[in-house]
Amino acid sequence: MEDYSKKDLLECYRLIEPYIHNTPVMSSRLIDEIVGAKVYFKCENFQRMGAYKMRGATHAILRLSSDQRAKGVVTHSSGNFAQALALAAQSLGVTAHIVMPSDAPAVKKSAVINYGGRIVECEPNLEARKAMADKVASETGASFLHPSNDRDVILGQGTACMEFLKEHPDLDFIFVPVGGGGLIAGTALAANFFSKGTKVIGAEPFEVDDAYRSFHSGHIETNLTTNTMADGLKTILGDQTLPIILRLVDRIIRVEEKEILSAMRLIWERMKLVVEPSSAVALAALIRSSQEYTNSKIGIIISGGNVDLSKLSF
Amino acid sequence: MEDYSKKDLLECYRLIEPYIHNTPVMSSRLIDEIVGAKVYFKCENFQRMGAYKMRGATHAILRLSSDQRAKGVVTHSSGNFAQALALAAQSLGVTAHIVMPSDAPAVKKSAVINYGGRIVECEPNLEARKAMADKVASETGASFLHPSNDRDVILGQGTACMEFLKEHPDLDFIFVPVGGGGLIAGTALAANFFSKGTKVIGAEPFEVDDAYRSFHSGHIETNLTTNTMADGLKTILGDQTLPIILRLVDRIIRVEEKEILSAMRLIWERMKLVVEPSSAVALAALIRSSQEYTNSKIGIIISGGNVDLSKLSF
Repeated sequence: MEDYSKKDLLECYRLIEPYIHNTPVMSSRLIDEIVGAKVYFKCENFQRMGAYKMRGATHAILRLSSDQRAKGVVTHSSGNFAQALALAAQSLGVTAHIVMPSDAPAVKKSAVINYGGRIVECEPNLEARKAMADKVASETGASFLHPSNDRDVILGQGTACMEFLKEHPDLDFIFVPVGGGGLIAGTALAANFFSKGTKVIGAEPFEVDDAYRSFHSGHIETNLTTNTMADGLKTILGDQTLPIILRLVDRIIRVEEKEILSAMRLIWERMKLVVEPSSAVALAALIRSSQEYTNSKIGIIISGGNVDLSKLSF
Repeated sequence: MEDYSKKDLLECYRLIEPYIHNTPVMSSRLIDEIVGAKVYFKCENFQRMGAYKMRGATHAILRLSSDQRAKGVVTHSSGNFAQALALAAQSLGVTAHIVMPSDAPAVKKSAVINYGGRIVECEPNLEARKAMADKVASETGASFLHPSNDRDVILGQGTACMEFLKEHPDLDFIFVPVGGGGLIAGTALAANFFSKGTKVIGAEPFEVDDAYRSFHSGHIETNLTTNTMADGLKTILGDQTLPIILRLVDRIIRVEEKEILSAMRLIWERMKLVVEPSSAVALAALIRSSQEYTNSKIGIIISGGNVDLSKLSF
């Protein structure tokens, strides 16, 4: 990509390194046997606040001027980016305004509050969220940061892949889940600049296959349904993420809900890792297509582990 | 202890090292804040087959002569030792007979079968289990191996603490759960020989506080109730484990069921680790007594992560 360079990623990594974890890579003999390949899992569920989003949020704030930082940041999200921006802002002494729909689960609101975020409630629809974020930005002068469709966020998310390739330079493929596209765009950039031909593959539920359709049509497609357990993948691509995906991603594989559940259970039971459904989508895609990847060396980015355990009955 | 030496542990570790994982140590800022101390978790949930029992089982088989190995091994257990012995035996080309009560959960039976174990069913009471194990031993010539009350098993379990102290030589305390006492006895021996005064503390549910009472009476006590979610801790001490515990353990702390649940949830939610209730007992004991350990450097052995996830509804 003309707009991105190896130097951009290296500079990004240098900036955020003090604020993030270099997360461990794990593997499972049983999963290797099931897939018929050697599979490595980059465990971003162990990242600060429990997801890779911490990388992009931290980078985006660090790129602001001190004047901008003094006025705070604002985003609209009820997911991991809300928590990530709150914690990254707290670490850097910046005020974070998080626009959340009034019907967001209490557990997500309290997580943001625990990380020092200031919640602004709005009606539960996308227009209201955008309007409220604009209002907060104009009233406070806070900088709006998009959860995925933002150059600095994309670069930040790419650092997980940089660490992964440093530890395993010979990965043939890296599988990542696709929601707004920040992670896959960053991963594709990092693989482009730091690997010798590692191919990046997206994984998406059939229920929200906008990225698959966008990848084939070349335009930003939307979803008619969002009935997926992978709640982090309900968002659509943007004008910053789509061009990178079109140019650098190898393919996007779609999976059924039952495949997501089965892959998630495999990771919990066999790897003893708490991962969120969105993370399991990448393994589900690999298992579904495993006959095409036999004997390869495969990386999977476990995107996060923030599950509402109050739904679980021990 | 006169019967055990530093050399015994070193020799044990040398023998089993090729067959076990040196498991990672993890930590959590939030848990440090809650406890008011620096806490390190030795993650034996990442051990092969998901629990530290793999260490002792492997060592016990490796100590058998080749004639003995050819005749197989037998134990009675429906828990982690059953799976550990099956997998250790499989790794070493030995037949493992596992005596299990006829009402053992299907998931536990299938785990043993998946690891190549040969299940022998019996009536669901301790006498029937012992009688059946004796019968198998006399019919096949298999060596009986006790899940905890066995010198070689105790030494094997002690290797987790050896690894822990190698990585963190300056631990003030190590907390471990107490069931049959194999883990705490091995840990106490390892701390005795390899630390500069690290104290070993046992953790036990009030519902099965036989070890607490044995520690204070000096005799093997039994349990009148076993209504605990920590199903790995329902067993009692033996004549091999009690003397070591009496001599080398600092104290035993008892915890309520609700404290176990709360500690388990903290580990799942914040550390993203799948751990079994028995493992959470050690953190629960530390949290309950945290005011006595302020500013200490504390190790906790996460004993295992084998949870029946079919009980969980996602």
